[in-house]
Amino acid sequence: MHAVIMAGGSGTRFWPYSRNDRPKQFLKMGGNKPMLVETCDRLGSLVNDEEIIIVLGENHLGEARELLKDRKIHILAEPIGRNTAPCIGLGAIYARHLGCKGATAFLPADHFIADPAAFISVLEQAAKVAESGGIVTLGIIPSRPETGYGYIQRSMSGSGSPDSAVFEVSAFVEKPDLEKAREYLASGDYFWNAGIFVATHETILNEIRVHLPGLYKGLASLEKSLGTGSFGKRLKAVYEELESVSFDYGIMEKTESPLFVVPCECGWSDVGSWEALHELRVEDHDGMRNLSEGETILIDCKNSLVSGMSGRLVACLGIKNCIIVDTDDALLVADLGRSQDIRKIVDQLKKDNREDLL
Amino acid sequence: MHAVIMAGGSGTRFWPYSRNDRPKQFLKMGGNKPMLVETCDRLGSLVNDEEIIIVLGENHLGEARELLKDRKIHILAEPIGRNTAPCIGLGAIYARHLGCKGATAFLPADHFIADPAAFISVLEQAAKVAESGGIVTLGIIPSRPETGYGYIQRSMSGSGSPDSAVFEVSAFVEKPDLEKAREYLASGDYFWNAGIFVATHETILNEIRVHLPGLYKGLASLEKSLGTGSFGKRLKAVYEELESVSFDYGIMEKTESPLFVVPCECGWSDVGSWEALHELRVEDHDGMRNLSEGETILIDCKNSLVSGMSGRLVACLGIKNCIIVDTDDALLVADLGRSQDIRKIVDQLKKDNREDLL
Repeated sequence: MHAVIMAGGSGTRFWPYSRNDRPKQFLKMGGNKPMLVETCDRLGSLVNDEEIIIVLGENHLGEARELLKDRKIHILAEPIGRNTAPCIGLGAIYARHLGCKGATAFLPADHFIADPAAFISVLEQAAKVAESGGIVTLGIIPSRPETGYGYIQRSMSGSGSPDSAVFEVSAFVEKPDLEKAREYLASGDYFWNAGIFVATHETILNEIRVHLPGLYKGLASLEKSLGTGSFGKRLKAVYEELESVSFDYGIMEKTESPLFVVPCECGWSDVGSWEALHELRVEDHDGMRNLSEGETILIDCKNSLVSGMSGRLVACLGIKNCIIVDTDDALLVADLGRSQDIRKIVDQLKKDNREDLL
Repeated sequence: MHAVIMAGGSGTRFWPYSRNDRPKQFLKMGGNKPMLVETCDRLGSLVNDEEIIIVLGENHLGEARELLKDRKIHILAEPIGRNTAPCIGLGAIYARHLGCKGATAFLPADHFIADPAAFISVLEQAAKVAESGGIVTLGIIPSRPETGYGYIQRSMSGSGSPDSAVFEVSAFVEKPDLEKAREYLASGDYFWNAGIFVATHETILNEIRVHLPGLYKGLASLEKSLGTGSFGKRLKAVYEELESVSFDYGIMEKTESPLFVVPCECGWSDVGSWEALHELRVEDHDGMRNLSEGETILIDCKNSLVSGMSGRLVACLGIKNCIIVDTDDALLVADLGRSQDIRKIVDQLKKDNREDLL
């Protein structure tokens, strides 16, 4: 099995810890290693390093090479971000180039998975289905009525045992409101869409040929240069002409081929905000629900995330529901419930021409 | 008129801005100059620089000299802190040494006064009374039922016009509970004790002779060395033998001489906590009651004090009732209402042997 890891995201939701040149996938989001490395490691028992292809932005190539320098992982740098369809297409032609005979997993670089063994077992199962054709998505079994994710609705009939069920996809559903999310949760027919799927490169490239012919043409023109010195130059020329389009919109919503969903219970989180990180990592040994790292003193604090990684002491007294992130050049103090609005600070910094802090 | 400015305080309530070697009186507490300098400047129209005597701890001598280097202010350094009675006695003998003929004002170095002209006018009035004998305290007319200050109860009968009344002191009262404080406020007979008083050096030294004979003996033995090279050495020998005793306890509560109080409305505050500083300096132009200095971004924040003087950007989102003080080596984030508990952090630092942060 091969894997294409999509590591192109930028994202501002973890400012000031994440920056333009150091997005979430390159950071230790409360784990022991940067998320990209954890994503590679997690595949270990199923996919060898030389079968892993990372696709990322050119500006992060150095960082990734540094992180993975002793490993035989393939790294492809997109000269311009063109959303997920070109990224997945590029991964697919590269998997073909590497001689991949079976299925390929496509997955984001910046997700957290509490139970890697469960995740790997579902990937294996999905691969088996995918080898007979079609795209097989992972459907995360929801644990709460989350309004921040898209959902996958399964069809009524499935196959396989209760432990290894596979369903046809009935629909992809946009982020719901709370009421709908509650219905989805209660019905048992809806899964969180984690953006993880498995398919052969033939299936992917065939879908692209049918639904995104411009992209297909570009990819086809690239294939000859794969593994040669002219690849970078060709890639740049091709990407400049490509349209930005997501795989969900360009392929998933339009395909007439069968789409499958394999339910997955693996403690998945996209770690989409400081609040999500707090929720995920907090250890409530003293009933205060604080999460802290670095040199900190917390007195009478509750439900707060305190990251003091600048070397400075961070002393907190009597605070509740707070995010405090101290870095060398910027400090964030925010209400935990306002995690999603951190982009407002980033917007302000852009307006103030503070590129040095972005 | 002469003035003795008592600048010996240490204090931890403004950590991390104030430190052992840089207590509140040496800091700009929201004003334009360090409080000690503002205290000297405020006396300007009434007391010449060469009639001002600052008494402080030896460890702060360099700092004070640096701050006041172009001025002819006298600075006396106590080798050991022995509370206020020795400090005031030392100031009194030094005023006598300088040839002071009239009254001397004794006042702390770290208070804020919004209306210096009103303050000076009350000092002048107090000086006139003091020249006929007795100790004349300033009684700050209370504006709220404050439980954090001691009070001065006036006797029923006063003299002078309503604008320049003088009363005999009926009693000094300890910090009251809220109910008592409300009664005091309603009665009109109680004033806040700001620790500011006016008396001739003869009065002060006579009181010390009667009530603190040990201190008197020490001071008397010092007088010969005043202005000579052996003063420092003598001072050290004398101070080592002195008892620690406050002027309030040692003199004010025991004296049989008349004590007066002159009511004073001058926008006084002892700026005793971050919360008090916020209250004092906040400018509520946008209804949000935030007070910020340095490089800050505040989005949807309320009733908070944000001090970013480390050069780092401090970005705040959605916080309420917060103190944020960022310095080069330590950051404080605290609930505004917990100002008084900042010593708990200082205690923790002591326990952790973090003298570098104290």
